Amino acid sequence: MSLVNKNVADFVAKKINRLDVPLSRLRATAIADHVPIIGDQVAAFLRFQLAQIAPRQILEIGTAVGYSGALMLTYSTAHLTTLELDAGVRQRALQNFDDLGLTPRVTSLLGDASQLLAELPSRHYDLIFIDAGKGHYLDYFQKGLALLKPGGVIIADNVLLRGFLAGEPHPRRQRTANQRMNEFIDYVCQHPAFDSALLTIGDGVLICKERVVNE
Amino acid sequence: MSLVNKNVADFVAKKINRLDVPLSRLRATAIADHVPIIGDQVAAFLRFQLAQIAPRQILEIGTAVGYSGALMLTYSTAHLTTLELDAGVRQRALQNFDDLGLTPRVTSLLGDASQLLAELPSRHYDLIFIDAGKGHYLDYFQKGLALLKPGGVIIADNVLLRGFLAGEPHPRRQRTANQRMNEFIDYVCQHPAFDSALLTIGDGVLICKERVVNE
Repeated sequence: MSLVNKNVADFVAKKINRLDVPLSRLRATAIADHVPIIGDQVAAFLRFQLAQIAPRQILEIGTAVGYSGALMLTYSTAHLTTLELDAGVRQRALQNFDDLGLTPRVTSLLGDASQLLAELPSRHYDLIFIDAGKGHYLDYFQKGLALLKPGGVIIADNVLLRGFLAGEPHPRRQRTANQRMNEFIDYVCQHPAFDSALLTIGDGVLICKERVVNE
Repeated sequence: MSLVNKNVADFVAKKINRLDVPLSRLRATAIADHVPIIGDQVAAFLRFQLAQIAPRQILEIGTAVGYSGALMLTYSTAHLTTLELDAGVRQRALQNFDDLGLTPRVTSLLGDASQLLAELPSRHYDLIFIDAGKGHYLDYFQKGLALLKPGGVIIADNVLLRGFLAGEPHPRRQRTANQRMNEFIDYVCQHPAFDSALLTIGDGVLICKERVVNE
């Protein structure tokens, strides 16, 4: 199921700012190939956040085919460090970044995010975007904390798991994923050092910002 | 109807950061008295935006009983200028601000917002929050533009009109309201000087930020 009523979602999709042409093409190809990419409403919100944050350094956990990464590069002046577990998928992303002339602004790392995160520079990123293995969000978040600049923002996509998390009927094998995501959401929403908002857009977005004393 | 499926809305409501006690009381009283106030998800998003914007000067169009105003004052260090058409409602807000010790940080103006906006200082506000007569949003927005600091943010609540705007069955008298809100949304989303996002939270929130060249 979807979180938002279909009429409403369709209406909003029509209103959203149009993407630049190269991004639109990348989006269309991904959809045609049944590759999962961020939804249009989430893309629009991310674009808006880029305007608010004006990041210099972005860390992305889960490159996939590079659509969200290309979007973040197109609508900011940042450098992107992006992590991907699957070598074949990463190759597609590298090709896409190259086609869009974005390669000089991308550091692409292949491997397990939990391990890669331990090797990245601390207090370096203005924005961390999490869109990877759904069972590991809490681990990524906790490791990401050390990498975030003071006052930085972390955005996690797909946190409501198509409504399964809210008690919609779900298959038995969904239970562990639900439980882990639930723990992640509670951890973030109750974290004393972060302001957070849980948004019913797309498949659910959790956004949080580290509090800065005397900002 | 609501925009978001009920199970999901209920789940999110449980996760959201708790409000400080005085605000919770004000919220409970308003709900008991059937006074319309901003929804919990919108309140959480507004609170998050206050953390991002760190505004010094906030302008609110539509005080109502002062719940959203009190929330914006509680979660920022800003001064609030707030406009209200109804003298009786404004009195309740003034009492509520006083009960919460917020009076020194509030400038409350009584009258028609379209006229009051013409008298306010230009380029003065970091954040403008619109939650007033639904047929006048475009007028408020256009007049608000001159009052916004460069790079400032405008947030408008209830823009999806309980889904009526998205083609849900609606009474005939809803048509003009729909048409006007539709024009407002198009105007903002297509405005070349603003980045915007239309969010399916609460009853629909439109947020936009003025682009700043060489920020």
